[in-house]
Amino acid sequence: MISAEELLKSEIPIIDKWLDDLLPAETEPPQTIHRAMRYSVLSGGKRLRPALAIIAFRRFGGEGDRIYPPACALELIHAYSLIHDDLPSMDNDDVRRGKPTNHKVFGEAIAILAGDALHALAFRNLAEAGDIRIVADVASAIGTRGLVGGQVFDLEAEDTEPTAEILEGIHRGKTAALIAVSLRMGARLAGADDEDVDAVSAYGEKIGLAFQIIDDILDITADPKKLGKPVGSDEEHNKATYPRLFGIERSRQIAEELIASAKASLGDDPNNEELHAVADFILRRAY
Amino acid sequence: MISAEELLKSEIPIIDKWLDDLLPAETEPPQTIHRAMRYSVLSGGKRLRPALAIIAFRRFGGEGDRIYPPACALELIHAYSLIHDDLPSMDNDDVRRGKPTNHKVFGEAIAILAGDALHALAFRNLAEAGDIRIVADVASAIGTRGLVGGQVFDLEAEDTEPTAEILEGIHRGKTAALIAVSLRMGARLAGADDEDVDAVSAYGEKIGLAFQIIDDILDITADPKKLGKPVGSDEEHNKATYPRLFGIERSRQIAEELIASAKASLGDDPNNEELHAVADFILRRAY
Repeated sequence: MISAEELLKSEIPIIDKWLDDLLPAETEPPQTIHRAMRYSVLSGGKRLRPALAIIAFRRFGGEGDRIYPPACALELIHAYSLIHDDLPSMDNDDVRRGKPTNHKVFGEAIAILAGDALHALAFRNLAEAGDIRIVADVASAIGTRGLVGGQVFDLEAEDTEPTAEILEGIHRGKTAALIAVSLRMGARLAGADDEDVDAVSAYGEKIGLAFQIIDDILDITADPKKLGKPVGSDEEHNKATYPRLFGIERSRQIAEELIASAKASLGDDPNNEELHAVADFILRRAY
Repeated sequence: MISAEELLKSEIPIIDKWLDDLLPAETEPPQTIHRAMRYSVLSGGKRLRPALAIIAFRRFGGEGDRIYPPACALELIHAYSLIHDDLPSMDNDDVRRGKPTNHKVFGEAIAILAGDALHALAFRNLAEAGDIRIVADVASAIGTRGLVGGQVFDLEAEDTEPTAEILEGIHRGKTAALIAVSLRMGARLAGADDEDVDAVSAYGEKIGLAFQIIDDILDITADPKKLGKPVGSDEEHNKATYPRLFGIERSRQIAEELIASAKASLGDDPNNEELHAVADFILRRAY
């Protein structure tokens, strides 16, 4: 069996090709915004969300290419949220994945609109899957009860001493909601029954939260070249993070507990081997 | 028969009630963003887009309340686009519908996120209708080939002398695309056949363009109290408008031609009487 790391990596070039195809060409007017959209989406990245959707889809017997448009929609949403998060009025970040952020290159107006256009294009591609339930699931995961809500809690928590509860709320919204719905989508589109869909969602929620905790740890301990962005930016922005509240040791322990609990959500059906391996990899990753 | 003006107005309180119900309560955390969303959506407005969806729905035999969630989704999208358009890096407007714009009250970060959250909530409510085609239609209408594209063309045309073609592209994107898809949605959800759906879309495209031309004329000639915003703001921003390019007289004539053409798109089936009356009203309106 190939490792989880290799499995996730093997999907990247395929996802990148689909993303390239479904984004409007740079030569199509209005060119500026298409350049801006392509700049942020096609700038590398782990493609974790689409890859998880694809892995869940295959796990539950899904076949063929129809998973790719809605899976790529998750990456478009992720890219839109990063562009908006980086804006001067938000986190005011200048560098992302080793390159200047979208608004540093295209200006704030185009950056805001590029995010908006990616958001719309995501739903265009979600619709391709022909299942209204995944539109509802994703829309719920990225609103004020998910992604946007997490960002608001995050902004409000800057320069305060957040409780563990608030911190979990931030991470559940900003990261875990989209990761959970990625897995949920893959399972649903493969025709998994409701029980399996819910189990894989619970798994996604937990690995999503663990992913963010590891992210916060890496922001302190990682090699900036491997990470593709400066380390220490959470500290600089006075961000609410697990290491800040609990220290690095205890944070890693919480992530370990979440990964164990994620695997338990699935049960030990041998068909879950890949998802178990993915969970372990999230804990181990160094970038 | 009641007049088109009365017909459109009669839907406003019903739409407002639905919007109030489908927006998260101000008391639900994160409260700031829910307050910001409600502030912009529930600040009055003509509710033209949902009203047109409802009128088209009834025209093609649609019955009951199921049109309201997706119709209201169009108003959420309209509100999101106005919040983002008003931002300092875009049109930098301080007043909208007689009240301070969203970012003047809540700050830029929350205004951007309120727009994003309304965008997501719109798709949540579109999904309620259970028809994947309207998700695809709306997503296409508000991306770079529609709403966002129009805004980009508009930003790029500031301080230039736009051609009639560019001007039409701006208005088609910024206004006509969403109005056309509103009518399209209503017809589709009522079960209209493809020919009727396309005819009502063509009608919508034309009344949408005429609506924007009249809007530009009103920005010069209207009573600011009736309009709910300062007049002359297009002039001040050096905006590309029909009156600027063609003068007021010729602009009004173009709008008249569009309205006649819109009515012709539908044909003279007596069942189209209401839609004809709505087209005439759009030409006549003074606010």
